[in-house]
Amino acid sequence: MHTPELILKKRNGSALSKAEIDYLIKGFTSHAIPDYQMSALLMAIYFRGMTAAECVDLTMSMARSGEMADLGSIKGFKVDKHSTGGVGDTTSLVLAPLVAAAGGTVAKMTGRELGHTGGTVDKLESIPGMNLELTKDQFIRIANEVGLSLAAQSDSLAPADKQIYALRNVTGTVDSIPLIAASIMSKKLAGGADGIVLDVKTGSGAFMRKYQDSVELAQTMVRIGDGAGRKMLALITSMEQPLGEAVGNALEVKEAIETLQGRGPQDLVELVLELGANMLMLCGLAGGLEAAKARLAQCIEDGSGADKMAKFIKAQGGDPRVVKDTGLLPRANTRIEVTAPLDGYVQRIDALDVGMASKLLGAGRTTKDEVLDLSIGLILKKKVGSQVMAGEPLAELHTDGNAAKVDLAKTRLLQAYTIGSRPVPQPRLILARVTADNIEEISYEE
Amino acid sequence: MHTPELILKKRNGSALSKAEIDYLIKGFTSHAIPDYQMSALLMAIYFRGMTAAECVDLTMSMARSGEMADLGSIKGFKVDKHSTGGVGDTTSLVLAPLVAAAGGTVAKMTGRELGHTGGTVDKLESIPGMNLELTKDQFIRIANEVGLSLAAQSDSLAPADKQIYALRNVTGTVDSIPLIAASIMSKKLAGGADGIVLDVKTGSGAFMRKYQDSVELAQTMVRIGDGAGRKMLALITSMEQPLGEAVGNALEVKEAIETLQGRGPQDLVELVLELGANMLMLCGLAGGLEAAKARLAQCIEDGSGADKMAKFIKAQGGDPRVVKDTGLLPRANTRIEVTAPLDGYVQRIDALDVGMASKLLGAGRTTKDEVLDLSIGLILKKKVGSQVMAGEPLAELHTDGNAAKVDLAKTRLLQAYTIGSRPVPQPRLILARVTADNIEEISYEE
Repeated sequence: MHTPELILKKRNGSALSKAEIDYLIKGFTSHAIPDYQMSALLMAIYFRGMTAAECVDLTMSMARSGEMADLGSIKGFKVDKHSTGGVGDTTSLVLAPLVAAAGGTVAKMTGRELGHTGGTVDKLESIPGMNLELTKDQFIRIANEVGLSLAAQSDSLAPADKQIYALRNVTGTVDSIPLIAASIMSKKLAGGADGIVLDVKTGSGAFMRKYQDSVELAQTMVRIGDGAGRKMLALITSMEQPLGEAVGNALEVKEAIETLQGRGPQDLVELVLELGANMLMLCGLAGGLEAAKARLAQCIEDGSGADKMAKFIKAQGGDPRVVKDTGLLPRANTRIEVTAPLDGYVQRIDALDVGMASKLLGAGRTTKDEVLDLSIGLILKKKVGSQVMAGEPLAELHTDGNAAKVDLAKTRLLQAYTIGSRPVPQPRLILARVTADNIEEISYEE
Repeated sequence: MHTPELILKKRNGSALSKAEIDYLIKGFTSHAIPDYQMSALLMAIYFRGMTAAECVDLTMSMARSGEMADLGSIKGFKVDKHSTGGVGDTTSLVLAPLVAAAGGTVAKMTGRELGHTGGTVDKLESIPGMNLELTKDQFIRIANEVGLSLAAQSDSLAPADKQIYALRNVTGTVDSIPLIAASIMSKKLAGGADGIVLDVKTGSGAFMRKYQDSVELAQTMVRIGDGAGRKMLALITSMEQPLGEAVGNALEVKEAIETLQGRGPQDLVELVLELGANMLMLCGLAGGLEAAKARLAQCIEDGSGADKMAKFIKAQGGDPRVVKDTGLLPRANTRIEVTAPLDGYVQRIDALDVGMASKLLGAGRTTKDEVLDLSIGLILKKKVGSQVMAGEPLAELHTDGNAAKVDLAKTRLLQAYTIGSRPVPQPRLILARVTADNIEEISYEE
């Protein structure tokens, strides 16, 4: 095969074969195909798109560029969940123990991230003693014993994705739906789960701002997973304001524990029940969505979800007492209130501005090797639809007391809030449910 | 400026500013912008095209990447001509002395090429003693004394073009009209002529196979030249069969001399008169096209064209006696006839096949440093429309006697010819005349 001809083939609108895609990905990861040919190909893909078959072939080729996790020795149907990002998204921390408590098996690899807060690995590491760097044997043993294990994603998971993403990031080829879908799904497929529920965020705080793009991305990913023999379902959920109230590593763990104990913010609970019920459906553990939701609600009510969280923490070396006493989590030495400048109703909270405020305080990583102070973050006291009086707290900043950081974060947080005199309804959260051949709109309106 | 943002701007369909284009070209030529970003940009340009202003800015930026020839000390209006390639194109060798004989000034830089034959430099070097490696002073002095000087193009002429072309060639971005136009025109503008007549070939033997693409390329180049303050005109001419009869270096010089002496093939004469008349018009040396053609025909008839050729050869160190005695040019030791396999009329001669036959014999360069045997080539004895009897010669191969090469070339040449029973008219040659705002169709038919 001759690389320039394959670039031309794609550029001229033809679909590449599986063998051609394998040749390109193998060539690129082995440095036989130079960056300048791959970037031209990526730009051609941006303009021409990819067929469903090409998306599957590209994703599998990227997944197979590294080690494919073999979860065969974990009993039962392994179910995973992936969110396309957002602000204050604590769902994994609640969902994993809750689904395990309801009988599902969750053996999940997860990352450290550059973002508004750390990734799930960072969040869990705020629990004293918690170990996310598991060996394969530990990972499998804990999954079998507890029904839940979580490990930090290794560099050998889909290395082609990392290499391609680095190139996309500097060549104007990030926002291509087939490339985004292949990037996410290559890691998920390499992770080895039998079924995957995708939570595709949409709106001003999400990577995909337009609803239609989010639906297209969701369906592309579902079809890739189907094509690779996995059970798939995607939800389109709104990220017009941050999810829940906590943004920050230890603060989100605290919020997750409280949610498992029945004291969670309404929107986080709603999303966890919806995602969890769909995960149980994929596992074949529920007769219907409503029954599945009721079962998960029961696991909150009877304490079995919180109990599973404690068992999971203990199995991975952490101090399970945090579940009973969240005061054992790291706490910031300074709390500063940000107050409302006027009376009214919260019309809008820009999730990206809230995320930036959290990052400015020091909750998120700017460079890969940065060590985070896991106690830092913020708590939103008012969400969209809330009535507020001038001088009332909108949010509480948890900081190390650095006045310059606090000033920047405060300004950004006030920018995030729009307060107006008109009462507004609570925004819709679950917008649509997407399968390979169906888009069921739940509460989406133009 | 930030390169990924400029790539995105182009990718999303906006026009780049002059400053942005300068930043990209300077950055790329100085290796500050890596190949992988330039190739992504080139692919985005392939899909999005470029506005007229962007084409001018890109071309000027590429032209200014090296030395800009200053022809200010050559008296009069300097006129140049450029052909977009083809097979057996001897026009420059006839046109330059003829236009000079009619009072025009031609100070032209020209190349060695990878192709079916060498470039104009190679062709002229078949004249004993001929020196094309002129100093600036020699180039200017000869142009002033003779009205005609020809120098080999130096590497410092538009180096950005060479670097960009190398990348386009391996990233599927060759056939983009704005990029082709900028590549050609950057060298022409750096060459310093006041006026340029473009001969854009179209058809099966040309780089541009489709008439409409050729017109678009022609008009893009004319507009670039206009935008850079040069006088411009383009002709669209047919390259459905090779031009003239000779294909090869010394063979084309011989054909050029014979054409100046009134014994040229009809199609070559027609094209030379048309291009030359348009060059004289740009120079302001003729009242109208027909008058200009008559004047050029007169320069053939009275021998002043051939005389100018001899003076030019002498001024550049060559043996001017070749004009009187073409037997002084290098001659191949072996001539082999290729004969018609059946009776009929020549329906078609595939110019690319003829070019390949010439290259197989050894008339053209495959690698940059190859030394050519300038005597090698072929003479077409029958052109499209000719009646031919089985066993009559179609062509004569001029070779070094290597039987393997001859066999390959013979086969290829026979493939080039289509002979059928239907009489066919002589094909049209001059199809259209293109200015910045007008396309005058002369003999083009769908």
